[in-house]
Amino acid sequence: MSKPHPQANHHHSRPRDIPVAALAERIRAGDRATLARAITLVESRRAADRLKAHELIQAILADTGRAIRVGITGVPGVGKSTAIDQLGVNLTARGHRVAVLAVDPSSTRSGGSILGDKTRMARLAVDSNAYVRPSPSSGTLGGVAAKTRETMLLCEAAGFDVILVETVGVGQSETTVAGMVDVFVVLALAGAGDELQGIKKGVIEIADLIAVNKADGDNLLRARAAVSEYRAALNILAPRSPNWRPPVVAISGLANEGLDDLWAEVERHRAALTTSGEFAERRRHQQVEWMWSMLEERLLTWLRTNPTVKDRLAALEAGVAAGALAPSLAVDEIADVLGI
Amino acid sequence: MSKPHPQANHHHSRPRDIPVAALAERIRAGDRATLARAITLVESRRAADRLKAHELIQAILADTGRAIRVGITGVPGVGKSTAIDQLGVNLTARGHRVAVLAVDPSSTRSGGSILGDKTRMARLAVDSNAYVRPSPSSGTLGGVAAKTRETMLLCEAAGFDVILVETVGVGQSETTVAGMVDVFVVLALAGAGDELQGIKKGVIEIADLIAVNKADGDNLLRARAAVSEYRAALNILAPRSPNWRPPVVAISGLANEGLDDLWAEVERHRAALTTSGEFAERRRHQQVEWMWSMLEERLLTWLRTNPTVKDRLAALEAGVAAGALAPSLAVDEIADVLGI
Repeated sequence: MSKPHPQANHHHSRPRDIPVAALAERIRAGDRATLARAITLVESRRAADRLKAHELIQAILADTGRAIRVGITGVPGVGKSTAIDQLGVNLTARGHRVAVLAVDPSSTRSGGSILGDKTRMARLAVDSNAYVRPSPSSGTLGGVAAKTRETMLLCEAAGFDVILVETVGVGQSETTVAGMVDVFVVLALAGAGDELQGIKKGVIEIADLIAVNKADGDNLLRARAAVSEYRAALNILAPRSPNWRPPVVAISGLANEGLDDLWAEVERHRAALTTSGEFAERRRHQQVEWMWSMLEERLLTWLRTNPTVKDRLAALEAGVAAGALAPSLAVDEIADVLGI
Repeated sequence: MSKPHPQANHHHSRPRDIPVAALAERIRAGDRATLARAITLVESRRAADRLKAHELIQAILADTGRAIRVGITGVPGVGKSTAIDQLGVNLTARGHRVAVLAVDPSSTRSGGSILGDKTRMARLAVDSNAYVRPSPSSGTLGGVAAKTRETMLLCEAAGFDVILVETVGVGQSETTVAGMVDVFVVLALAGAGDELQGIKKGVIEIADLIAVNKADGDNLLRARAAVSEYRAALNILAPRSPNWRPPVVAISGLANEGLDDLWAEVERHRAALTTSGEFAERRRHQQVEWMWSMLEERLLTWLRTNPTVKDRLAALEAGVAAGALAPSLAVDEIADVLGI
């Protein structure tokens, strides 16, 4: 979204007219309108905005990192919105301040995010201790992820102590979100295996926690069976961390059941990884990985848009695809042209 | 290995002294000594050798692609060498010409590959219709993989119609090998789950075929149980291809049992993916991906070794890791220095 956030409409000055220090100050003060417009600044494609956004992130960096960052994925139909809405309401009732962000690269094509939509989270949307922000709808997964990371930092500076980052399984979005959060939760359904549920390969294996949703009414027994099914599968798969065995819980977002167990596991996960030192190490690693992925993206963008190689690159790629040109020769030629 | 292959010792002229066209001609004629030295050329780090190697690959490219490319992984102790030795002998007995290559990035550290070692494949090593080549021991996984891809092409040009690429689970080596072959086989053992067997997360999910080895003697029943266990796990995981459900077979490399079933599945896989057009598409995709991974590697190498940014980069990375510097600002600064 490049238009200012609705909540910002009563303001008139655009964030780009306000000095970075002032923006940072208002954000630290918890001013929602400024937060919304700072996020719009972060999401802007204008070079000047991007530069200012980076300075703003730097200005608030010291006030970030104290929230628990939770990634939540699950295919459409799994009841993600209802579960997140209820989980968020439970958390604000306990005194937490909850921000819900989203990573949905497909929103670029669909022209607007299907995630984080306020109408999907009726109660959180009107909860003064919650902040729901749709996915940035701009370009590559890497680009969307970078903006979401920076939005997460802005929300932390604004005093939100729980960040829920939701994603629907598009491309590599789960892996990307798992790479920016402390704990990654996969919502699943009772059913005939992940295939029918559309859970992509690799997703179960990056899960720190699996929650079988819709464990209510007639579905309760099937949900319990699914819990055992997933436990069995997890026994076959090597755990993501030496300090944590991913648990499987049954929940019902609709009936508000099991969500406290889910959150207890999130806190148990944080405690286990903090004790082992893995928590801090994972964050350090995520920061550096983020820098390198941005550097790679910058280099590749430079390469793909470089007028001196652009056409040549397309021709070489076609030759390689046809099996007529050795990839190594193609690379030699591009490297020569670039002088690298 | 930068020293020439033993089989090449009775020759005196180094490959770099022979014109590319002549090397290509001798390789097409199936001259093993020339093949061995061409591989050494491909593995060389010298710039002049690399350039010549790329020209050689281009010269033989039209004679490649007709072999079936099979990736085989499994942790140490799974009986990989024995199984590959027996499988290879079975295949040459049927008139196939079998090349065994290896991808083992760790061989850089261990100073020499632990894979493809002839002493581990006693019968294949002396089989005139087989060619066993250790892993190149040079640098990054990407570098090792690129050399193995080129070695695979050289072997195909030399008339080998079955290429077995083995890897032990180091880093991302399985994913890399799965990305260069037509079918990816995971050798497993009966036991208390992959974790104890050391199979890393993601590996089961890129398998086109799982073979539970050591299904013999006292172990037979446990192996059969493991087969069902893996089938159950595969039912929970989304298949890699819409045209193929990964089968699980029980084999014994030692007793030469089940290896014909394994190979029948490999051929069934090829037929299924050929009919659907996925086979050709996968190879096109692999070629282009290979080109891009080499381009990325080239760009990143240029970045990391660029004297103008090298020291600055280290400082910035430290600041980012410490959480004191926003990754986006670090990237801006590097991009400025590089002028990209």
